Amino acid sequence: MPSYTAPLKDMQFVLHDVLNASEQNIPGYDELDRDFTAAVIGEAGKLASDVLMPLNAVGDTEGCTLENGVVRTPTGFRAAFDQMRDGGWTALDCDPQYGGQGLPYVMHTAAQEPFVSANMAFNMYQGLTHGAYTAIYMHGSVAQKQTYLPKMTTCEWTGTMNLTEPHCGTDLGLMRTKAVPQDDGSYKVTGQKIFISAGDHDMADNIIHLVLAKIPGGPDGIKGVSLFIVPKFIVNEDGSLGDRNGVSVGKIEEKMGIHGNATCVMNYDDATGYLVGEMHKGMRPMFTMMNEARLGVGLQGYAQAEVAYQNAVAYANDRLQGRDVTGAKAPEKSADPIIVHPDIRRNLMDQKSFVEGARAFTYWGAYLIDRAHKTSDADADGLISLLTPVVKGFLTDKGFEMAVNAQQVYGGHGYIEEWGMSQFARDARIAMIYEGANGIQALDLVGRKLAQDGGKHVMAFFDMIKTFASETKGQDEAFDRDFLEPLKSASKDLQAASMYFMSQGMKNPNNALAGSYDFMHMFGHVCLGYMWARMGLAASKALADGASDVAFYETKLATGRYYMARQLPATKMHLARIETGADPVMALEAANF
Amino acid sequence: MPSYTAPLKDMQFVLHDVLNASEQNIPGYDELDRDFTAAVIGEAGKLASDVLMPLNAVGDTEGCTLENGVVRTPTGFRAAFDQMRDGGWTALDCDPQYGGQGLPYVMHTAAQEPFVSANMAFNMYQGLTHGAYTAIYMHGSVAQKQTYLPKMTTCEWTGTMNLTEPHCGTDLGLMRTKAVPQDDGSYKVTGQKIFISAGDHDMADNIIHLVLAKIPGGPDGIKGVSLFIVPKFIVNEDGSLGDRNGVSVGKIEEKMGIHGNATCVMNYDDATGYLVGEMHKGMRPMFTMMNEARLGVGLQGYAQAEVAYQNAVAYANDRLQGRDVTGAKAPEKSADPIIVHPDIRRNLMDQKSFVEGARAFTYWGAYLIDRAHKTSDADADGLISLLTPVVKGFLTDKGFEMAVNAQQVYGGHGYIEEWGMSQFARDARIAMIYEGANGIQALDLVGRKLAQDGGKHVMAFFDMIKTFASETKGQDEAFDRDFLEPLKSASKDLQAASMYFMSQGMKNPNNALAGSYDFMHMFGHVCLGYMWARMGLAASKALADGASDVAFYETKLATGRYYMARQLPATKMHLARIETGADPVMALEAANF
Repeated sequence: MPSYTAPLKDMQFVLHDVLNASEQNIPGYDELDRDFTAAVIGEAGKLASDVLMPLNAVGDTEGCTLENGVVRTPTGFRAAFDQMRDGGWTALDCDPQYGGQGLPYVMHTAAQEPFVSANMAFNMYQGLTHGAYTAIYMHGSVAQKQTYLPKMTTCEWTGTMNLTEPHCGTDLGLMRTKAVPQDDGSYKVTGQKIFISAGDHDMADNIIHLVLAKIPGGPDGIKGVSLFIVPKFIVNEDGSLGDRNGVSVGKIEEKMGIHGNATCVMNYDDATGYLVGEMHKGMRPMFTMMNEARLGVGLQGYAQAEVAYQNAVAYANDRLQGRDVTGAKAPEKSADPIIVHPDIRRNLMDQKSFVEGARAFTYWGAYLIDRAHKTSDADADGLISLLTPVVKGFLTDKGFEMAVNAQQVYGGHGYIEEWGMSQFARDARIAMIYEGANGIQALDLVGRKLAQDGGKHVMAFFDMIKTFASETKGQDEAFDRDFLEPLKSASKDLQAASMYFMSQGMKNPNNALAGSYDFMHMFGHVCLGYMWARMGLAASKALADGASDVAFYETKLATGRYYMARQLPATKMHLARIETGADPVMALEAANF
Repeated sequence: MPSYTAPLKDMQFVLHDVLNASEQNIPGYDELDRDFTAAVIGEAGKLASDVLMPLNAVGDTEGCTLENGVVRTPTGFRAAFDQMRDGGWTALDCDPQYGGQGLPYVMHTAAQEPFVSANMAFNMYQGLTHGAYTAIYMHGSVAQKQTYLPKMTTCEWTGTMNLTEPHCGTDLGLMRTKAVPQDDGSYKVTGQKIFISAGDHDMADNIIHLVLAKIPGGPDGIKGVSLFIVPKFIVNEDGSLGDRNGVSVGKIEEKMGIHGNATCVMNYDDATGYLVGEMHKGMRPMFTMMNEARLGVGLQGYAQAEVAYQNAVAYANDRLQGRDVTGAKAPEKSADPIIVHPDIRRNLMDQKSFVEGARAFTYWGAYLIDRAHKTSDADADGLISLLTPVVKGFLTDKGFEMAVNAQQVYGGHGYIEEWGMSQFARDARIAMIYEGANGIQALDLVGRKLAQDGGKHVMAFFDMIKTFASETKGQDEAFDRDFLEPLKSASKDLQAASMYFMSQGMKNPNNALAGSYDFMHMFGHVCLGYMWARMGLAASKALADGASDVAFYETKLATGRYYMARQLPATKMHLARIETGADPVMALEAANF
């Protein structure tokens, strides 16, 4: 059975050595000293290891069941959800006015990581609620906030997001779900939504569905979409639960993974709904949810890779096969542990250097969100808006790849469900798809974000790298060679790709779009390279300052050197692909595929 | 539900336009004219589409069950197995002396492809039998051949390979299964074997287990391993079935995929076994099986990608979302089919160009095996020995990646089991693991094959590419630019990596082994590049000769150009990684992972 231990030192390293959290001039950050964050993530890690991890395989094996219209979650989920609620984990960063703890988003993000590593399917029940909370918090009326948020911060009521319909996913303009205005100001919502995560379950008193629908007579396409609150049970004026609303579960989908989460077909049949925000402007609050959700999905990518990696390391230290080619390492045993073999190392280093870089990237993203929201910093807002598709697309693609690599370390045992490695790969797979399939992330990046505000944000990104390089250069020859030079070279490749898009995309937008996926990956590598350079710098500084845990910081440096030397060269390949333009990609008639 | 149509034109193109099968001076090849091969693969394709494909999801959903010690296969498997037997598909290339049809191995390989695409788990029952047939055919005594082979060519009796034990997979020297000699010349075999594909089932009268075991008192390690025939039912002198042997199924493993195939724990308890070949020389016949099996596993890699690709194309033509950014393609519909979008194209072209290159590589490999075996061509033998780990490792890694990419085209529907795309990915995953995990293939390639016979075979490979380039150059400017130049450049990268291994591997073998996995992928790209150059040439020739199906050949050229332009640049990245040597890979102490 796989196990999990929250990598507290690595998490603290990012929060403090790299991001210098407590020294940032952002409201709430002054609280984030080492002791405080250690206490929070330490407790989160304990809950994850002791309670959530043992339920991960249970959720996978039992799955959710639909009995007489009611979804039953796997054995033990309900009790664990109570523990999560009781510990106050469901609303770390929510507004205290509604029962939240008012901590920065970066703290929420760090505390989520262990939960996601230990049991991704389970954690989605509260994760979706958090997204729904944010949409109502940002766009709901005062009355709506007062009615729903206090119960949602505690997860007494959970939330869902209802976008997809059988014939429309990415292209929400094709939506058919209708919302007909009623005399009392409410709406009657009718239609079918699919792929609704946590769509129904037995762990909360009420479920607050956020549903996109069209009000008849509104504009065509995406401009006629509005957002509605559709509670499972109508909430009475006094806050008590009233009638069952006209929403029911059609079925639970059989999926490749995340079996512990109920992915439902939801049928709305004259269900009472309440408009959130303005009529026909439903995409705005939906995007509020989605951007937050996308960072969270990026986190899922590397968090699954983290738990898979931990188990792969344990197996590689335990499994005896063959001998170190340079001389036996465990002559007293029948064979050496497989961690002696260079190709096992290569695999583990790929995983390790990715996961640690991805963690830094994600926490930095959360920090940018805090800076944007709490200090109204437009530059931070622009930067995180640019980077969101990279966080989501790159970290989930690579997270899955690394979970597959970790599975590979186990040989045949990796393919057997009993060992748990298959589940990490199967669960991680969804993160590449939901909240906008990764091809859509690439489209968002290249088709929208790159040119946003006249390309200002991507220019600021390049400036940031340049400034970082010039400010740190010349102090340490090894750092310059091992970290700065590769970063500058990769960043130059990314700039060349941006230039190519600008010049050739003008002639034919497909010249840019045909390279969008490669660009997203390239951008991801540059971001992780930047993060590793910052981590390398922080580790060097800690060592120079006489830190006691020398092995920890030297390991950071070695892991960073690995990423720079063996992962960053991917940018050249991506650039070469991009510069072939649209021709090879678009050459065939559809009939000739 | 997914569907499958055998890509007969593509298969014929490789057999005839590229390999010129019927003109090769190899015994049996003269029969392989276009009409004959069309008839064979056409019938194979029909069986695959009509009978095997509909059972693919059944096998996945039902799996195999163990009831009172007997394995039951999924509904319909037995009848389908009878059809396969009745059609004579189980022994196309086997010796007519034992009931085979005596066709070349390349014909067997081509005929297998549709079966593997349509139902990989099902096809393994006969695939394993074929491997066991080969081991007995090559190394068994006359009496053993006469006893077992006639029933194995018809699959009245099926076969298995028993290598792995709980504590030993790759490192077979650690084996504990014992074989104690008896007075009558037989052995008593005792031990436990795991991961035994098709270990037991209800589709054959007898199962012939090939079991590796140690005869007490023999040499330590791998040199003390012998191979035994251990039939499920003892075969009487007259060929009738006698007593049940001391072999039983411990359990069926729960796996990520290939649920239709029973992967068994096999317990041998004083089971009667018969030595195959020489005492303590059991690895030799096992390798005979494994090399053939490895080509077959490479085929599984791309064959799963092929069926996944076919369905992804159908979905991309069917699913309406968004509009072509250069102008609506289906203005009469609510949206354009997603195949208009460049990133969907990029994904499909990656799949298509891989699958077609991989097919050519595999058939060429089968042709080399024929040449080696049927004409005792030592060069062909050396070349296929070198390339076997590349076929297995590269085609299964990429095959899985492409099946995952095909799944991605479906968005959320790709994650739902109902649509069948998850199964292709889950089934394809095993091919990276069994018959030697891909890291072992890389080790075999770099640690053994590269230096074999003084490096003669890899030199011959480079010469072959060089000769091909010089012979074809200068006739067609576009061909030179689009095919030859990229091939030469990629081949040069591969040579540089070989040189690096030679010079740096002398100092420390880890400098080579740390780059082995990248080298295997690089080699795979060069092989597919070479295949695409040959296919490009063949397509150009057909067009110049006035072939009627212009679109087919032009599509080949466009697909080849795509591979050369957008896949071959990967060699530069792999070279950069390789040239970092062992240092970044081996930097950490095992305790610091």
